[in-house]
Amino acid sequence: MKKKVRLGIIGAGRIGQIHATNVLQSPQAELVVVSDVYFDSEVQARLHSYGVETTDDYLTVLRREDVDAVLVCSSTDTHIDMISEAAANGKHVFCEKPVSLETAKTKMAIAKAEAQGIALQIGFNRRFDPNVQEAKAQLEQGRIGALHSLRIISRDPAPPPAEYVARSGGLFKDMAIHDLDMARYLTGKEVEEVYVRAACLVDPMFATHDDVDTATTVLTFTDGTFATIENSRRAVYGYDQRIELFGEKGMIQVGNQQESTVQISGEGHIESAKPQAFFLERYATSYRNELEQFLYAITFGGTVPCTGKDALVAEELADACRLSWKEKKPILFTARPNTSKG
Amino acid sequence: MKKKVRLGIIGAGRIGQIHATNVLQSPQAELVVVSDVYFDSEVQARLHSYGVETTDDYLTVLRREDVDAVLVCSSTDTHIDMISEAAANGKHVFCEKPVSLETAKTKMAIAKAEAQGIALQIGFNRRFDPNVQEAKAQLEQGRIGALHSLRIISRDPAPPPAEYVARSGGLFKDMAIHDLDMARYLTGKEVEEVYVRAACLVDPMFATHDDVDTATTVLTFTDGTFATIENSRRAVYGYDQRIELFGEKGMIQVGNQQESTVQISGEGHIESAKPQAFFLERYATSYRNELEQFLYAITFGGTVPCTGKDALVAEELADACRLSWKEKKPILFTARPNTSKG
Amino acid sequence: MKKKVRLGIIGAGRIGQIHATNVLQSPQAELVVVSDVYFDSEVQARLHSYGVETTDDYLTVLRREDVDAVLVCSSTDTHIDMISEAAANGKHVFCEKPVSLETAKTKMAIAKAEAQGIALQIGFNRRFDPNVQEAKAQLEQGRIGALHSLRIISRDPAPPPAEYVARSGGLFKDMAIHDLDMARYLTGKEVEEVYVRAACLVDPMFATHDDVDTATTVLTFTDGTFATIENSRRAVYGYDQRIELFGEKGMIQVGNQQESTVQISGEGHIESAKPQAFFLERYATSYRNELEQFLYAITFGGTVPCTGKDALVAEELADACRLSWKEKKPILFTARPNTSKG
Amino acid sequence: MKKKVRLGIIGAGRIGQIHATNVLQSPQAELVVVSDVYFDSEVQARLHSYGVETTDDYLTVLRREDVDAVLVCSSTDTHIDMISEAAANGKHVFCEKPVSLETAKTKMAIAKAEAQGIALQIGFNRRFDPNVQEAKAQLEQGRIGALHSLRIISRDPAPPPAEYVARSGGLFKDMAIHDLDMARYLTGKEVEEVYVRAACLVDPMFATHDDVDTATTVLTFTDGTFATIENSRRAVYGYDQRIELFGEKGMIQVGNQQESTVQISGEGHIESAKPQAFFLERYATSYRNELEQFLYAITFGGTVPCTGKDALVAEELADACRLSWKEKKPILFTARPNTSKG
Repeated sequence: MKKKVRLGIIGAGRIGQIHATNVLQSPQAELVVVSDVYFDSEVQARLHSYGVETTDDYLTVLRREDVDAVLVCSSTDTHIDMISEAAANGKHVFCEKPVSLETAKTKMAIAKAEAQGIALQIGFNRRFDPNVQEAKAQLEQGRIGALHSLRIISRDPAPPPAEYVARSGGLFKDMAIHDLDMARYLTGKEVEEVYVRAACLVDPMFATHDDVDTATTVLTFTDGTFATIENSRRAVYGYDQRIELFGEKGMIQVGNQQESTVQISGEGHIESAKPQAFFLERYATSYRNELEQFLYAITFGGTVPCTGKDALVAEELADACRLSWKEKKPILFTARPNTSKG
Repeated sequence: MKKKVRLGIIGAGRIGQIHATNVLQSPQAELVVVSDVYFDSEVQARLHSYGVETTDDYLTVLRREDVDAVLVCSSTDTHIDMISEAAANGKHVFCEKPVSLETAKTKMAIAKAEAQGIALQIGFNRRFDPNVQEAKAQLEQGRIGALHSLRIISRDPAPPPAEYVARSGGLFKDMAIHDLDMARYLTGKEVEEVYVRAACLVDPMFATHDDVDTATTVLTFTDGTFATIENSRRAVYGYDQRIELFGEKGMIQVGNQQESTVQISGEGHIESAKPQAFFLERYATSYRNELEQFLYAITFGGTVPCTGKDALVAEELADACRLSWKEKKPILFTARPNTSKG
Repeated sequence: MKKKVRLGIIGAGRIGQIHATNVLQSPQAELVVVSDVYFDSEVQARLHSYGVETTDDYLTVLRREDVDAVLVCSSTDTHIDMISEAAANGKHVFCEKPVSLETAKTKMAIAKAEAQGIALQIGFNRRFDPNVQEAKAQLEQGRIGALHSLRIISRDPAPPPAEYVARSGGLFKDMAIHDLDMARYLTGKEVEEVYVRAACLVDPMFATHDDVDTATTVLTFTDGTFATIENSRRAVYGYDQRIELFGEKGMIQVGNQQESTVQISGEGHIESAKPQAFFLERYATSYRNELEQFLYAITFGGTVPCTGKDALVAEELADACRLSWKEKKPILFTARPNTSKG
Repeated sequence: MKKKVRLGIIGAGRIGQIHATNVLQSPQAELVVVSDVYFDSEVQARLHSYGVETTDDYLTVLRREDVDAVLVCSSTDTHIDMISEAAANGKHVFCEKPVSLETAKTKMAIAKAEAQGIALQIGFNRRFDPNVQEAKAQLEQGRIGALHSLRIISRDPAPPPAEYVARSGGLFKDMAIHDLDMARYLTGKEVEEVYVRAACLVDPMFATHDDVDTATTVLTFTDGTFATIENSRRAVYGYDQRIELFGEKGMIQVGNQQESTVQISGEGHIESAKPQAFFLERYATSYRNELEQFLYAITFGGTVPCTGKDALVAEELADACRLSWKEKKPILFTARPNTSKG
């Protein structure tokens, strides 16, 4: 039996807690320590009950001898420091997306990780959704022949609070970035042009932060095929996460997961359950899977399934989207791995 | 080009009007005359505008030289006389179900039709539903291997008026008779035993007519497999007409046809449209198909697709169902074609 | 009772036959004469059996005293002449889309119809689909609040023959034109900008006619909201016709109509029926409805539900789409009714 | 914070492992020891890695001071001894269904548990399925008014091995018992009569064990309403677990959970995923919920949500079903809690 991977987690918010639970349930890993600047006392107590240490100093996490790898779940503006320090200390890193709000910094962090030979995996959790995996497998088995177009619907159930929006990097870098990554992941294609139409229709608050809440994006790939992405910060019926792959020999659709299988037929109509509320429910399995593959990669030395470079391209695409929105015109995308110095 | 079949219709109520419309649209038939004791003036005017004669005397319909066949759409208690007179005059007959409320009379009518060599087709319209046809074709092509069990859900949207109930012959002979016929038609099997549990749950009016409004029926076939039928006189969500065939290699389901394909996702749930309201909508195509096949049979001399004998067995099964309900015990069914003198 | 409208039909191809059948079944109309340059003998015989005259000279149709209105179902390049001649003879016109391949000519035809005071209705049949009508009604009743975005999927089951493509006016004017009209019809909004990405992915034949077979279109409306349209000349699974309206308080979806309600559960998966094959099946009811409303308008003098101006805007949008495809950039659309002299 | 419940598990087979995993992940419980006569070495190693002791002697589990309660997951024939010994040692018991194959013994075990004041919860896991819970909640809130009929479809994906069948107690006591319990649980009604038709259609092996593999059961409740249950030992398309509640004001349906939300539209038809394979996947959440409620009851002293008496009635119903099958007639059911001495 392989020795367990000893993990530290930085950031004990919503996403940090998800990862903590998954680590505690994993037979491959041991949760040694969790840091947070402002710990929720209940969360802290629960961690202690499992024998996990807690601290308010992330540096102690990154420098402990008995920690092999860290999960960076703190706010985006801290990621670069965390990755740099982790690299310096030879700790493998799993980092939530985006790596940073400035691609220059992201590049630097990737370079440091490479220089120190640590693994750097980025949390594009949707790649690990079993439904997405099934769709990708069917596509790669030629089930629908050559891919002609792709459509991604990605709508949140409700907007985040204003303070989150203020520091989020905006709809494209905070939210659409998942879909930009998904488009590359599913198709295996690179983007040549980005065209965006976006607006502030849900809440004027977004405009005050120079942001939008609704967007339609067209990606043109280098082979001349295209994808559309539709984003909204508020779908009152729940977390709307659908994908449609259309091709030569048919269509593959990934539907929403509903809250229950109960259906009620009444006098007016037939009712079925809404999509599951939000990412914690919808992507619960994805979070477990991405952790498992991270642990596998650092245990057996393989490549992580979602690299810093993937994060960088997604961030650059998000920048191009923003530019297209601002300038109201299509933006040629030359930052793609095959053409740029990356 | 074959000469058109010249048709008369007896009875210009709801079902008679359906048939009249279909005859008027058929290139194979010509509608000569329609009779009704109490004609709706608007219906009469519409018929006249198409050059169709009307009368209040059904005998003139049955005795006209220029009528090749008649569609009997009058009330059940008149069917026997109509068939007898039609047979005497050499007119082919399409008769609505049931033939009569007494199987002895039904047998007599069948005998007369046979003696005179006229075609006698019974209006078990559901046999002609394209969805049912598709299900039967799949079954017969071995798609689910040997059939293990069958389930039929058959619920009306709302109960008929008391005066109709009074003369209907009761739930089994008026309503479940369609499902009893469907069970034989789909499976090609004959029934050995009938077990019914029934109750008056929708409206006490039914009880005052010695009738029920809700029933569950188990049919055991001679090969030891079984079917269940669920009937209700009121499904508030619409006309519920579903079939489930379960077998060795899978399951075939026939679903409801919905009023529209529109789906609305709101704050509480996802809404889709109810099943189509009632038989006129749900089985519109079936009515056209049964007419077409009747016309084909009398034009080219083949067998009609639903015979007087089929009607007789269904009526006998309905009697057995009623007996099972009354006596609260399973009833051996010996009237089936293969065992009885029929 | 109102006198029946006496109709002539010009063109007895696929769509002309549909209209002929519907006229023959309508109590409001009488089909007097049908013209075609090359008549199919079976079609001609069938028309004769209903007492309909036939001719190979459309002028006789347009000049007959006993014809009140004509349905123009001949090839696109003849429409302008037909409308002009009909106007000169005071006949109301129902004309298939597009009116012409040159908007200048379309404007002229509209002007002539207006000058002569004849009704001119254009055959954007999808407007009359009961599912579309239900979606529009729900939208207008405020069911999803303010509309944020619209998506139209419109894919044909198989490409038309090369000779059809050669004279079709191209994907945008022949096929997407329905969707461009639908976007205006459903939303009640006018377009400000068009952006198209298109390619030849189904069959290189399209490229030889300077045409494409696959396209994604983004329409930006004057209020800053947007719509996307996805077209393909070949969806192997059938005629894919879906609509999604997303708004403040929810989502309205119009789904495909399937060939049957039969579902088969087998060892590998659950199978359900494909969408109905093509427009003749999918929009059968729409064709009946548009005829009925045309007859109503010319009988009672109201406005037709889909005007020449609607056709003109759709044609101008199709031109803008083509330009966007060719120039690979967004095209400002200034031809809209509210801004142009139209 | 409440002290954790210290648990022992007897039996480390498929179901015992499920419970072990859930206990290990529960913050309310501590897994102290697991016993099995023939331990799988990998299972044993995994338990040791979590600090859980293992033994081949169940008595040591039942007699340890540091065990508060036990989960009995051993074969049915051992349950009575386990419960008796647990009661004698004051340990609370969660026992898998059925308690025993002889109702006299089940009564005795219940009596012993009551005499010693220990909690006795039975593992009718489906009661705890969130979909079932939602359906029951809707029913109880009056969503469909008075309940008229109930239908339960319960089909296994594949038959168990012959040695399992030999000791299983037969289809009714081993498999249908879940559905018999479900009928009582959902409706809150007691059964008055049982009627069964059953056959050996899947595998003749069942007949050699005096058993059947296919059955249709009609339960008549004391209020005159009824339920049907359809069982099969083999549905090639997966674990078929559906419920339909029909009532005065509508219908509630509980559908299957599918393996994925992926749908593929191809040339022949549209494919969607099969139901989840079997009970471990389909009822994963139910197993967690029943454990949680057991822990809650023994911690805070409330009633367990599924009692020994519930098990007894279900076993008596299973006996009545078998009798009905054997004697081919309806069986009056007088063993129900309200009429029997129980």
